[in-house]
Amino acid sequence: MPGSTFGRILTVTTFGESHGPGIGVVMDGAPSGIALTVEDIQKELDRRRPGQSAITTPRAEKDKVEILSGVFDGLTTGTPIALLIRNEDKRSSDYDNLKSLFRPGHADWTYGAKYGVRDWRAAAGHRAGKPRRAWRPAPWHERSWPSGASIMGYSREIAGVRAARVVPEEIEKNPARCPDPDAAPLMIARIEEAKAQGDSVGGIVEVVVQGCPPGLGDPVFDKLEALLGHAILSVGAVRGVEIGAGFEATRLRGSAYNDEPYMDGSRMRTRTNNAGGIAGGISNGMDIVIRAAMRPPASISRAQKTVDSRARRSPSRSPAATIPASFPVPFRSLKP
Amino acid sequence: MPGSTFGRILTVTTFGESHGPGIGVVMDGAPSGIALTVEDIQKELDRRRPGQSAITTPRAEKDKVEILSGVFDGLTTGTPIALLIRNEDKRSSDYDNLKSLFRPGHADWTYGAKYGVRDWRAAAGHRAGKPRRAWRPAPWHERSWPSGASIMGYSREIAGVRAARVVPEEIEKNPARCPDPDAAPLMIARIEEAKAQGDSVGGIVEVVVQGCPPGLGDPVFDKLEALLGHAILSVGAVRGVEIGAGFEATRLRGSAYNDEPYMDGSRMRTRTNNAGGIAGGISNGMDIVIRAAMRPPASISRAQKTVDSRARRSPSRSPAATIPASFPVPFRSLKP
Amino acid sequence: MPGSTFGRILTVTTFGESHGPGIGVVMDGAPSGIALTVEDIQKELDRRRPGQSAITTPRAEKDKVEILSGVFDGLTTGTPIALLIRNEDKRSSDYDNLKSLFRPGHADWTYGAKYGVRDWRAAAGHRAGKPRRAWRPAPWHERSWPSGASIMGYSREIAGVRAARVVPEEIEKNPARCPDPDAAPLMIARIEEAKAQGDSVGGIVEVVVQGCPPGLGDPVFDKLEALLGHAILSVGAVRGVEIGAGFEATRLRGSAYNDEPYMDGSRMRTRTNNAGGIAGGISNGMDIVIRAAMRPPASISRAQKTVDSRARRSPSRSPAATIPASFPVPFRSLKP
Amino acid sequence: MPGSTFGRILTVTTFGESHGPGIGVVMDGAPSGIALTVEDIQKELDRRRPGQSAITTPRAEKDKVEILSGVFDGLTTGTPIALLIRNEDKRSSDYDNLKSLFRPGHADWTYGAKYGVRDWRAAAGHRAGKPRRAWRPAPWHERSWPSGASIMGYSREIAGVRAARVVPEEIEKNPARCPDPDAAPLMIARIEEAKAQGDSVGGIVEVVVQGCPPGLGDPVFDKLEALLGHAILSVGAVRGVEIGAGFEATRLRGSAYNDEPYMDGSRMRTRTNNAGGIAGGISNGMDIVIRAAMRPPASISRAQKTVDSRARRSPSRSPAATIPASFPVPFRSLKP
Repeated sequence: MPGSTFGRILTVTTFGESHGPGIGVVMDGAPSGIALTVEDIQKELDRRRPGQSAITTPRAEKDKVEILSGVFDGLTTGTPIALLIRNEDKRSSDYDNLKSLFRPGHADWTYGAKYGVRDWRAAAGHRAGKPRRAWRPAPWHERSWPSGASIMGYSREIAGVRAARVVPEEIEKNPARCPDPDAAPLMIARIEEAKAQGDSVGGIVEVVVQGCPPGLGDPVFDKLEALLGHAILSVGAVRGVEIGAGFEATRLRGSAYNDEPYMDGSRMRTRTNNAGGIAGGISNGMDIVIRAAMRPPASISRAQKTVDSRARRSPSRSPAATIPASFPVPFRSLKP
Repeated sequence: MPGSTFGRILTVTTFGESHGPGIGVVMDGAPSGIALTVEDIQKELDRRRPGQSAITTPRAEKDKVEILSGVFDGLTTGTPIALLIRNEDKRSSDYDNLKSLFRPGHADWTYGAKYGVRDWRAAAGHRAGKPRRAWRPAPWHERSWPSGASIMGYSREIAGVRAARVVPEEIEKNPARCPDPDAAPLMIARIEEAKAQGDSVGGIVEVVVQGCPPGLGDPVFDKLEALLGHAILSVGAVRGVEIGAGFEATRLRGSAYNDEPYMDGSRMRTRTNNAGGIAGGISNGMDIVIRAAMRPPASISRAQKTVDSRARRSPSRSPAATIPASFPVPFRSLKP
Repeated sequence: MPGSTFGRILTVTTFGESHGPGIGVVMDGAPSGIALTVEDIQKELDRRRPGQSAITTPRAEKDKVEILSGVFDGLTTGTPIALLIRNEDKRSSDYDNLKSLFRPGHADWTYGAKYGVRDWRAAAGHRAGKPRRAWRPAPWHERSWPSGASIMGYSREIAGVRAARVVPEEIEKNPARCPDPDAAPLMIARIEEAKAQGDSVGGIVEVVVQGCPPGLGDPVFDKLEALLGHAILSVGAVRGVEIGAGFEATRLRGSAYNDEPYMDGSRMRTRTNNAGGIAGGISNGMDIVIRAAMRPPASISRAQKTVDSRARRSPSRSPAATIPASFPVPFRSLKP
Repeated sequence: MPGSTFGRILTVTTFGESHGPGIGVVMDGAPSGIALTVEDIQKELDRRRPGQSAITTPRAEKDKVEILSGVFDGLTTGTPIALLIRNEDKRSSDYDNLKSLFRPGHADWTYGAKYGVRDWRAAAGHRAGKPRRAWRPAPWHERSWPSGASIMGYSREIAGVRAARVVPEEIEKNPARCPDPDAAPLMIARIEEAKAQGDSVGGIVEVVVQGCPPGLGDPVFDKLEALLGHAILSVGAVRGVEIGAGFEATRLRGSAYNDEPYMDGSRMRTRTNNAGGIAGGISNGMDIVIRAAMRPPASISRAQKTVDSRARRSPSRSPAATIPASFPVPFRSLKP
């Protein structure tokens, strides 16, 4: 089966190139009777919109979403929900100078290897960050569905600066979405420094799910961490994922790693949470803690050496890419 | 869809509990006409068999595999290949003392939360390490299929001791499967030290795929790293996965992370391999490098505090578990 | 998994209600480099457009299709192809009188039972015939892909009048798409007669695939006839499907049913084709012959007794539905 | 995805050849806590066992089933349930004379076309009737699961003799599983007549589901009739399937076909059941009525002309096949 559909119970099918007529998603399997308006979705899109602060990409695009199906009289009908975002800015001539260059750190070459054709407009248009915005509205239900769970996301680390503590109400107060008021200015300084030098930085996003009921996930191939890992690794810039103690767990002894169970009323809890809320592939009712390693964005404005497909000569020089450093914060605090 | 089947082109369906009649797999989608004997598979099983060295679990089980279908006259027929391993040792009375205890670090509690029944024989029998052995034969084809790719796996790090270099021919020479002859004795010492104290250690497994053709993987949800990550995170002890520079990439600038392309004859290559062989979700022809963080095994012989389901009192003391420290090395060098 | 996606190698995801903003499909898995223009698709849509002849529904809608993604410079790129048809006519007030009535033969009641909400605009809007038009462009590739196979479809029977012979060039010459010039006028007369009486008629569509290579299909659950049957039975009006001799095969003896094989050069053929081109679930290289039983359309202009959800009284009288008798011919002759 | 796994919520994966070591199924997704013993399953297998009466195949095989996993202390655990039936009779030398002959009506040729290898032991062993027996236990839950629905199956027609009425308690009283005591002797006479002449007969199986709740099925591709049709068409001998009025519906007018709704207390029902319990792809609470056209078995003892792969000459004469006429009755009355 082709790979543009994801999910078991709620499936998300994605389409669109960053420089084509539009991008969108079809969500199938949503329950009927849930309140959903175009404003609910637009708010999420606006939150991630580029050009909001000095540390993000300056493109000022206004993505306007339209609901094509699945909603009637403000309620979901149970049938597929299709969303469409028209691309405003289709001046692919902006990219003419990239027509023959393989941009370092981009997927130009692998797309050619797979498909045999090259959509030079945005090189790897289908993959580029913009279409990903079409998925953003997909998890709108997290807030609306009566699961009782809340999701909180923030920058745990940017350019090597680590948030030492998590103060949920701080997250939305700074453009770095850093939960530690002491670390935030340092993160922003590092981003601006890199940006001034035509460069980009990476970081680590941490997501915490509170209130997830125990019993979710499957014991073998569809372990909860495997499904979440699959989803997170399908976000373009992610190069690693870890749950709970993650890579640090490899340096602990079993006696230190094993979380000690105790009874909290009728519910079992553990005194530590090295397991990150998932044991044996199944949620145990503790907070689910998962981290994604995001590499620095490939598009930088410094000149880089690369290959020119016309000359097939190497090395050549890539023109300065138009997209300066930015650090995506693809998750959010729903219940701070 | 339930989660005991994995794969798109070749699917693997798993079944069996560690203390039931047997464990097995059904592989569907294998091409016809490939040479396959029961000895090919048995050799792989023997390689991982417990009790081989002082640093692994002392259980001396002889898993004998049987091919139930899909092979005729030594060749695959194209129909599903079913493999069965009978469980020799079903003395579940060994586990009687665990009947009411939730073992720390195990999935006893989450299984109960999901299924509402408790198979106390091995607590989380379906998940336990032994059934995983049934999957081992699944990738037999790596060697037989004419892909040209070779796979090499080894312990990059055990108990904090890191292999500084990779000498492929060293891997099979030491029980730690360490590719660095200087680090191997240190790793073994740390394992023995922990074992003497009734404890266990974790580590990092690194897998390198050489000769993978460019163009594999999908640009959106089924990125090659997402599919590999899903598979690797479905191995019980894995708590994190990273590709190429992985988590270290988050501390690099874009100009340092972006691998510089050059032409090697008619083929594009990159001077560095921070991408770990995958760009935009699609293999680029460089070595695929992927690492798995494996937590220390949960079964240790030291006493631990836990909950007793009879008394529902907490804390109580877990009896010493019978399975001492072991470090699984689930991957292997096919072409050293 | 929800049921709005179909297919293994090429998947089709559908969305849209007949009275919402629009309807569409996302096709994933199409190869790259295939010529495809919006005109190619529009031509197929126009062919089935209502209002073309006296015997079809008089609604004169002009479905205009737009390609949203997956095509660049007139060639497919290998990424998902999304198509959108805007609904022109959204006067749901036309249906106000149906707000509380369950239309006989329609799915009003079952939709309510499943989803708990009622989109009275078109009652079962997601299911209604119009959205199905969005799938029509999906098999455009049949013509473009270099498979060598050709597909021919026609009315084998309408209102009990059977086409005694198949003259391919006759199919497009009459609005009944009947391949027998003698039967065509009789079919049309029966349709007009029913229409004059505010009623509708059913029929049997026959599809013949010529040049299908042997070896397609799977031996167990995904037999070729099972996959085709699944697809055909997902067209709303279909109440039965049969392959080759079909139901008549149940009245033949084995010696008469078994097709006698013979060698035609290096290729095996059979002297008869009772198997309809599929043996053991796999194509055998003979013509694939499949028939679909299409019930008479549920929307008729005669008054019918039904239930009124306000009064919950029964029987009441349904208002005359606005859509007269029509007979859909959803398949076409590609190589007459 | 390969085609040996079927199902959305409960999946069934099948394996095994009729002349290999064994056949079996893996069922995933069954709920935990359901009582299930090996005797429950064995009873179903015995019911269909060949050699029970004069009108079935005389092979006297005793299929003994074993539960390999998924059941503990007589209850399902929620993990995959694997069943294995060992093949007793592996004398493939019985089939030596067929080594080079393509048996008319069998899938010998198409298997060769698909897989390129020929398992001459049973020609199309994976497909042959025997492995299908492994699926039989799969729906054991129909009886055990608390759905409230009951399933009844019987021979509606054999060799052209039609059951005029359905008396449930008659079904198990005659070897033809005919629900009409007047038609049963005629059906048996036709079978015996064909058998005496070395021939086989076909028939129509009718299945009725009573008490199915409304709301099951999906509006587009996974219509209930499409899913059932897929499943039924994957039984080897089936050449057609129809729901409710089926092919006869094509000769009715809309006003006659549309079932008139009325209120039966708080539940909507229809006065007729031409829809066969499914409207718009979703169950409506009326009886689900579905029929399968089963061709006469291909294996007959009369000589037939065929192709010899050694000589590649045509026509040749097939040896008399060893399996006389039989009529499978693959469904059963659960609540007579």
